[in-house]
Amino acid sequence: MTLEAQFQITRNRFVEICKPLATEDYSVQPAIFVSPPKWHLAHTTWFFEQFVLCKYVSNYKVFNADFAYLFNSYYNNAGSRVLRPNRGLMTRPSVQEVYQYRAYIDEQIGLFLKSNPSEEACKVLELGIQHEQQHQELFYYDITYILGNQPTFPAIQNNLELKPVQPAATFVNIPEGLYKIGHEGTGFCYDNELGRHQVFLEEFDICNQLVSNGEFLQFIEAGGYNNFNLWHAEGWDYIQQHAIQAPMYWHQIEGVWHQYTLDGFAPIDKNKPVMHVSFYEAFAFAEWKQMRLPTEFEWEVAANKFSYGQLWEWTNSAYLPYPNFSKAPGALGEYNGKFMINQMVLRGASVATVANHSRNTYRNFFHPDMRWQFAGIRLVK
Amino acid sequence: MTLEAQFQITRNRFVEICKPLATEDYSVQPAIFVSPPKWHLAHTTWFFEQFVLCKYVSNYKVFNADFAYLFNSYYNNAGSRVLRPNRGLMTRPSVQEVYQYRAYIDEQIGLFLKSNPSEEACKVLELGIQHEQQHQELFYYDITYILGNQPTFPAIQNNLELKPVQPAATFVNIPEGLYKIGHEGTGFCYDNELGRHQVFLEEFDICNQLVSNGEFLQFIEAGGYNNFNLWHAEGWDYIQQHAIQAPMYWHQIEGVWHQYTLDGFAPIDKNKPVMHVSFYEAFAFAEWKQMRLPTEFEWEVAANKFSYGQLWEWTNSAYLPYPNFSKAPGALGEYNGKFMINQMVLRGASVATVANHSRNTYRNFFHPDMRWQFAGIRLVK
Amino acid sequence: MTLEAQFQITRNRFVEICKPLATEDYSVQPAIFVSPPKWHLAHTTWFFEQFVLCKYVSNYKVFNADFAYLFNSYYNNAGSRVLRPNRGLMTRPSVQEVYQYRAYIDEQIGLFLKSNPSEEACKVLELGIQHEQQHQELFYYDITYILGNQPTFPAIQNNLELKPVQPAATFVNIPEGLYKIGHEGTGFCYDNELGRHQVFLEEFDICNQLVSNGEFLQFIEAGGYNNFNLWHAEGWDYIQQHAIQAPMYWHQIEGVWHQYTLDGFAPIDKNKPVMHVSFYEAFAFAEWKQMRLPTEFEWEVAANKFSYGQLWEWTNSAYLPYPNFSKAPGALGEYNGKFMINQMVLRGASVATVANHSRNTYRNFFHPDMRWQFAGIRLVK
Amino acid sequence: MTLEAQFQITRNRFVEICKPLATEDYSVQPAIFVSPPKWHLAHTTWFFEQFVLCKYVSNYKVFNADFAYLFNSYYNNAGSRVLRPNRGLMTRPSVQEVYQYRAYIDEQIGLFLKSNPSEEACKVLELGIQHEQQHQELFYYDITYILGNQPTFPAIQNNLELKPVQPAATFVNIPEGLYKIGHEGTGFCYDNELGRHQVFLEEFDICNQLVSNGEFLQFIEAGGYNNFNLWHAEGWDYIQQHAIQAPMYWHQIEGVWHQYTLDGFAPIDKNKPVMHVSFYEAFAFAEWKQMRLPTEFEWEVAANKFSYGQLWEWTNSAYLPYPNFSKAPGALGEYNGKFMINQMVLRGASVATVANHSRNTYRNFFHPDMRWQFAGIRLVK
Repeated sequence: MTLEAQFQITRNRFVEICKPLATEDYSVQPAIFVSPPKWHLAHTTWFFEQFVLCKYVSNYKVFNADFAYLFNSYYNNAGSRVLRPNRGLMTRPSVQEVYQYRAYIDEQIGLFLKSNPSEEACKVLELGIQHEQQHQELFYYDITYILGNQPTFPAIQNNLELKPVQPAATFVNIPEGLYKIGHEGTGFCYDNELGRHQVFLEEFDICNQLVSNGEFLQFIEAGGYNNFNLWHAEGWDYIQQHAIQAPMYWHQIEGVWHQYTLDGFAPIDKNKPVMHVSFYEAFAFAEWKQMRLPTEFEWEVAANKFSYGQLWEWTNSAYLPYPNFSKAPGALGEYNGKFMINQMVLRGASVATVANHSRNTYRNFFHPDMRWQFAGIRLVK
Repeated sequence: MTLEAQFQITRNRFVEICKPLATEDYSVQPAIFVSPPKWHLAHTTWFFEQFVLCKYVSNYKVFNADFAYLFNSYYNNAGSRVLRPNRGLMTRPSVQEVYQYRAYIDEQIGLFLKSNPSEEACKVLELGIQHEQQHQELFYYDITYILGNQPTFPAIQNNLELKPVQPAATFVNIPEGLYKIGHEGTGFCYDNELGRHQVFLEEFDICNQLVSNGEFLQFIEAGGYNNFNLWHAEGWDYIQQHAIQAPMYWHQIEGVWHQYTLDGFAPIDKNKPVMHVSFYEAFAFAEWKQMRLPTEFEWEVAANKFSYGQLWEWTNSAYLPYPNFSKAPGALGEYNGKFMINQMVLRGASVATVANHSRNTYRNFFHPDMRWQFAGIRLVK
Repeated sequence: MTLEAQFQITRNRFVEICKPLATEDYSVQPAIFVSPPKWHLAHTTWFFEQFVLCKYVSNYKVFNADFAYLFNSYYNNAGSRVLRPNRGLMTRPSVQEVYQYRAYIDEQIGLFLKSNPSEEACKVLELGIQHEQQHQELFYYDITYILGNQPTFPAIQNNLELKPVQPAATFVNIPEGLYKIGHEGTGFCYDNELGRHQVFLEEFDICNQLVSNGEFLQFIEAGGYNNFNLWHAEGWDYIQQHAIQAPMYWHQIEGVWHQYTLDGFAPIDKNKPVMHVSFYEAFAFAEWKQMRLPTEFEWEVAANKFSYGQLWEWTNSAYLPYPNFSKAPGALGEYNGKFMINQMVLRGASVATVANHSRNTYRNFFHPDMRWQFAGIRLVK
Repeated sequence: MTLEAQFQITRNRFVEICKPLATEDYSVQPAIFVSPPKWHLAHTTWFFEQFVLCKYVSNYKVFNADFAYLFNSYYNNAGSRVLRPNRGLMTRPSVQEVYQYRAYIDEQIGLFLKSNPSEEACKVLELGIQHEQQHQELFYYDITYILGNQPTFPAIQNNLELKPVQPAATFVNIPEGLYKIGHEGTGFCYDNELGRHQVFLEEFDICNQLVSNGEFLQFIEAGGYNNFNLWHAEGWDYIQQHAIQAPMYWHQIEGVWHQYTLDGFAPIDKNKPVMHVSFYEAFAFAEWKQMRLPTEFEWEVAANKFSYGQLWEWTNSAYLPYPNFSKAPGALGEYNGKFMINQMVLRGASVATVANHSRNTYRNFFHPDMRWQFAGIRLVK
């Protein structure tokens, strides 16, 4: 597919998936880790303006000089910006203005692509497309949080249904050996996947499917949330402090566990994979099963032996640089490297991930207490 | 004016003053003391539904059973409710639905008023009208805060211009004596104004006008914000902690003080009364002038000797019950009494106050650190 | 008594009342409102050094130049100082060094008193004595908190036993009238008692004794802590947030209420006055009794009709300046005036008050949520 | 050496190294990560009582039934306990009583060792000795913090002098290969060192000495603390929030950098290794040098090619379980495993480490923001 086609498809998709929203849904930020949909729409657009148009188009005229300040996320090299907790307070620009901003940038990028751009510029544009795809996934996490924390639990149309797990799980055996880890080939990847290198693994058996709601319910009913021996010390403190007794969006109504999803509020389906658990909960569940989570290297080696893509999968690997990691120059060097501390790697992809955005070597990462992302559990024994 | 006319005028006015807003402006809460405009519109409506229609109309059908939970403010007797800091997170109901709610209640109250309602019910309805007028004033404080804390300082159409102070201030002498304080007569008043009683005052001189921006600027330039001897200990801590060096909405741009108002961002007008100061700042200013703030009793006794109504005026009186204070029965007893601690009394009215809502005996009150309300300073010597 | 005798008696008393302490008890600060005993011993000493010796003795040699920084409390005019929450972290100087500091200052003041000091200097010295007496009372609050919050509830020898209340309370009637309020005569008083002035009071009846533990237990058992209608909004929030269900130092052990005092841990005595209640609790109790707390003016007028001195008594008066209040010049002007906001007046005295430190016009003050001081409840109807 | 000799030497050493303390120094906790010396003395004693005497001696009589509650650290399986932030508030038991407690346990363990104890019991006793040695090192961190944060910077006698670095650093080359990692042999080790396994390493060069104060000063003077490109995002936030511009205990006095150590306050010695840096600072320094920190595996493989033991050395490895990690049964299973999240591994030993407590495979760990431990920097290129 041409870069232009990729660009257009990606850009149009964001407009499309926002259609079920009311204007009011676009601007709120109910938690510091959530960004308002309007912000996502504008920030992904600013990324193209800042890193492509301003850099590679001479005499480029910015749409609105305030927007660099309003819609920069965390690029210190690109100047000061609205503090993260204040993203939900900007009632202006309006949603309509943001869509006008998108249209303007789409048009400018279209013109730019017809101007025989340099390979360097095309690389940045490709990164911008991948970046927007990541934000489309974050959008789904965020709108679920925005709507799922309102007393009325509104539903919106979406396309995120999870497949049920198979009735019988099996474990795949991977023999001891020296394996190659990291991206190879000419396709797109992030800098954190590069530096293909060898890792020695001991023999292990990995489950061919995710843990189900039904299995997780057994953990709850067996007192898993009340048995400190299953938990990391910080995980135990975390669930005490936040009074956590079930995955996020689970509510017990007259003895029956219900779950909020964008489809609305309904009793849990025991055959669906459990989602919205923190690393702490994933770890404690594995302890209870007397199994463990895979490392990210085990996962990568075994990934062609099972299907994935329903939910991101917590690994027991910290997010750290590969040998010979080197970050991209300039502001885009802030994309990955500076987050390589205090986070855990998740592998795979989720139903909210754009189809072509998924690969074996992809390293997603979140803090171990985060639960709003679409994450589940795969076990190793 | 008939009760029906008062009701209609008040209700229509709120719709009218909201017309300059964008849909996005209705739903945010940038500080815990701010409520979103949508919430004000719905809460004042719920007040009529809860305390008039549900109580006095048999078989009344509520507009939406969720709204009692969503739009109760602080009436414990009326059940549980959305926590105050979460008022800005409710993207639903939409603004349009809230206007439909208003229309429904307007119609129901209209029918009710034609049904020969009891005197008791009319009293509550009258309170509901006064209540909505108070929220219309709060709406102005809140929308100023919502827009005035955005990086782009948007302006909206409004009708709040302050009159300049007179070139020469004079002081009015009030002799020592025993004075009557509190409301009398048959007009509407709140329970906190009742219990007319005698207070002995010593002789004092009170200024016939408010402190101006120009005078306050002298205080700033004389180092008033950096001289701890002028401040209460808690006021001093407060301005240190929040790095306060000027009234709220003042910004120094290249050496020139500017002020945000709903008219937009502009250099301060030295002849206008200073506004958006806390009690702490009002007190420190008076100390610097070697004068003092009036007590609420001095203010009430002297009020017919000067004009007021531009800004609420800080007094040096704590908000406490009058002798023989008794609160209204039931949920409406929560209207005033339970706030009689840790707050200071303000007297007068502001340009944001509905015209007929102002009287000599009115006791407004805010915590001493609050600055977003339309408050100014009058001196006594 | 001569000033010298007053000085010596006061200074010796502090050493005496500290004798039951272990060295370890002198240095901890378990809450921000508590000061370590060592700090009290040194701070009261520094007060004499700073405001008497440094000022009035030429070529005075300070004991240790660091101590001004270590032991200043809140006198901005006397320079910077250790932050209040860090008072418990100074393991040095040792307790022994602090006693050496006291001995040095006692000797220097003794010499100074023999040098025919000016009347002005004697006034400050007298204030220093009163100041130390206040800190001796605070010492009792603080050591009770230090020991009463340890898991082992240590007891120490003391002289603070409360008298039981009389079996039958009576109410004293005070007629309506214009009364004089404030200190008169030549005896010592603080600046906040001056400005004797007239106050008009309506008729009231005031109880001749304090509320007992038994009466307060009835309030608890009647659900007083769970009935929001009895509480100020901020009081209700306060007891929710801190899970308060009884006075400070009360613990329910197998259904029986116990109380920690410096005598140790024991079942409550129903005939003793209830103590360690906040203003919020005092107010809620009065509401429940359908009575009220006195104002500080009512208390002062009625005080010669009942006995007091067991516990400080919460009034429903905010701590505000009397008419014509003027604070002392210089650093000592920081003694009272800058605290006249957000605090409530208590009248009377407690068993921890030095005998000659008590008078009808004394205005003590604490924030309404404070409970560690020796405060009780007297009712008015 | 016999187990009895090891026990006695270790126990006596703690008493010895505490001799320079004043009684007041034993009981304070100036930060949540600091424990009072008294607590260390009692907690290490309780460990022997709880896990050896109570378990293996029939009819053992505990010294004081309260102490299990007072001096348990984090063993949930051993019952409830004083909350960590409150360790500094226990003025009782006195220091003297704690020494009596130590003497009692020493005597009881002596008797127990003469009773032909089981191998299992001896293993736990050995762990108790190692545990006490760890706390003796923590004691040094804590007393440095306790004294080094007082305005008067008291010094105490100690034996912790660092050796200067060599004038010329050299880099040791380690070739690519498959290496064995983890403890082997029969000597003592912790459970987290077990599971000896293979790790594939690429070629690297590691410095034979630590970074010096002089080198770190160059980093400061080159603006290292103000260049966000050198820092992790969370590291950058951390130094902003805490206004960190130098290692802990560094103070700039009239342009000259000074450092507090237990020897007192003195200008920094440029030839000594830099210490008291967080992982964030170590990482940023390495970035600035265009080098990196070693992984814990690189460190372990290279350790016999350089000398270590001055300071713990930050690695860029997260603290995670080795393959086949299994924690000890019962309460002692809480020793290591539950901390394997959000912490970084440090290797080596420090001048505060007991001599025989150091080995190549030892895995120490701290959160990346911790600076009070004796930690330095070794570089890899």
